[in-house]
Amino acid sequence: MNVIYESLLDRRSVRAYEEKSVEDPIKTAILNAAFQAPTAGNQMLYSIIDVTDQQLKEKLAKTCDNQPFIAKAPLVFVFLADCRRWLDAYQEAGLKPREPGVGDILLAIQDAMIAAQNAVVAAESFGLGSCYIGDILENVEEHKRLFHLDDYVIPITMLVMGYPTKQQQERTKPVRFEGKYIVHENQYRRLTPQEHREMFEKHARETTFDYDDFMRKFCDRKYMSDFSLEMSRSSEIYVKQFLTTKKA
Amino acid sequence: MNVIYESLLDRRSVRAYEEKSVEDPIKTAILNAAFQAPTAGNQMLYSIIDVTDQQLKEKLAKTCDNQPFIAKAPLVFVFLADCRRWLDAYQEAGLKPREPGVGDILLAIQDAMIAAQNAVVAAESFGLGSCYIGDILENVEEHKRLFHLDDYVIPITMLVMGYPTKQQQERTKPVRFEGKYIVHENQYRRLTPQEHREMFEKHARETTFDYDDFMRKFCDRKYMSDFSLEMSRSSEIYVKQFLTTKKA
Repeated sequence: MNVIYESLLDRRSVRAYEEKSVEDPIKTAILNAAFQAPTAGNQMLYSIIDVTDQQLKEKLAKTCDNQPFIAKAPLVFVFLADCRRWLDAYQEAGLKPREPGVGDILLAIQDAMIAAQNAVVAAESFGLGSCYIGDILENVEEHKRLFHLDDYVIPITMLVMGYPTKQQQERTKPVRFEGKYIVHENQYRRLTPQEHREMFEKHARETTFDYDDFMRKFCDRKYMSDFSLEMSRSSEIYVKQFLTTKKA
Repeated sequence: MNVIYESLLDRRSVRAYEEKSVEDPIKTAILNAAFQAPTAGNQMLYSIIDVTDQQLKEKLAKTCDNQPFIAKAPLVFVFLADCRRWLDAYQEAGLKPREPGVGDILLAIQDAMIAAQNAVVAAESFGLGSCYIGDILENVEEHKRLFHLDDYVIPITMLVMGYPTKQQQERTKPVRFEGKYIVHENQYRRLTPQEHREMFEKHARETTFDYDDFMRKFCDRKYMSDFSLEMSRSSEIYVKQFLTTKKA
């Protein structure tokens, strides 16, 4: 319907990159698109770590669920939900503000993710592919040390980017679930057993699709996996800083 | 540099709309852009409430920090980070998965926000303006009741959209902070007192800018405000469901 809309529909994750660095003006423009994203009260409640050090990329390839392609990405950006910077800014003015709460960090996470997605769309417009690495939420102790993270700062996501290989450009985009299972009018409702089965059967588009078997394997591989358990362990440590009743 | 990038730079929040409804194909396309956004493991860990009921819009205009323009928006979408649907889907297959953890809800929040920002960019491409309403995180008890929210579902943001009035189209976009204060190379660092002052002085672009005075007023109006305290109170209730040691 228009080139912007088409670009949003076409975008798929890219995990293999040409051996070609990204020019500085392009990198600057991608970051600028992030900055220009909507942000609560114009506060930009995030910071971005621009990972340029190859050794650090190689460490992240291991600490983020062993994904070697991370080390080969020309651009690696860690998006931090940052409740530290404004706290410091208030204190610099001699104020004694409260400690950040759960609402503050959720708002900061929103800001960081909105900025990240603008970076993705901008990168796409310059011919770069990208991939979100949610695994940056894992290994809290190691990531806090590697990035010198302060309290009240959460590495909410990582984006890796580069020029896609031909094979990646030709890759088929995974089919999404149909909207009728995702959008509800005026109130939330849980899907019926029948709808759950239909949703996945249509999604799979295979005549031999076995719901129970698919679910068992997917649950084992994703939800009950080591990386998923680790993500929740680390995330809980990050989030507990913001509770009114802090439990270490 | 290209129309997609330019659109990302130009976008600003729109809070006043023409009295003109949004055609169904446009609405469908906006939601489709959300669905086609990147999503962890192709799971679409979110649901969307399409608020079409005028009375409900009017309630939200009150419960979301008294912002009457919400009731006048042709499109109102609540984005839910949804750890319920997959849990139900696993259980439908006879599995006994663990309860969702903090990592799961943070991943779902990411998915929801990425989808929301794609909706914003798509809306913009069709000439619609939009505004994020973070205040949907407030008033947990009332919003859970209004939307029939289940456990493990958080209304992480709300988007209101419509065709911008002429006055809104001509509104100047607020200036963002300079990138050098936001992006750090390889590791996080807190800004120096001098940098905090510089960052705001440049941002303000006023010769008479008084940092301490600005900070005091901003802190009172935003960070220490009733809506901010309420957002943290409600958010803590939402998030506590996901802790391993649940405290009601």
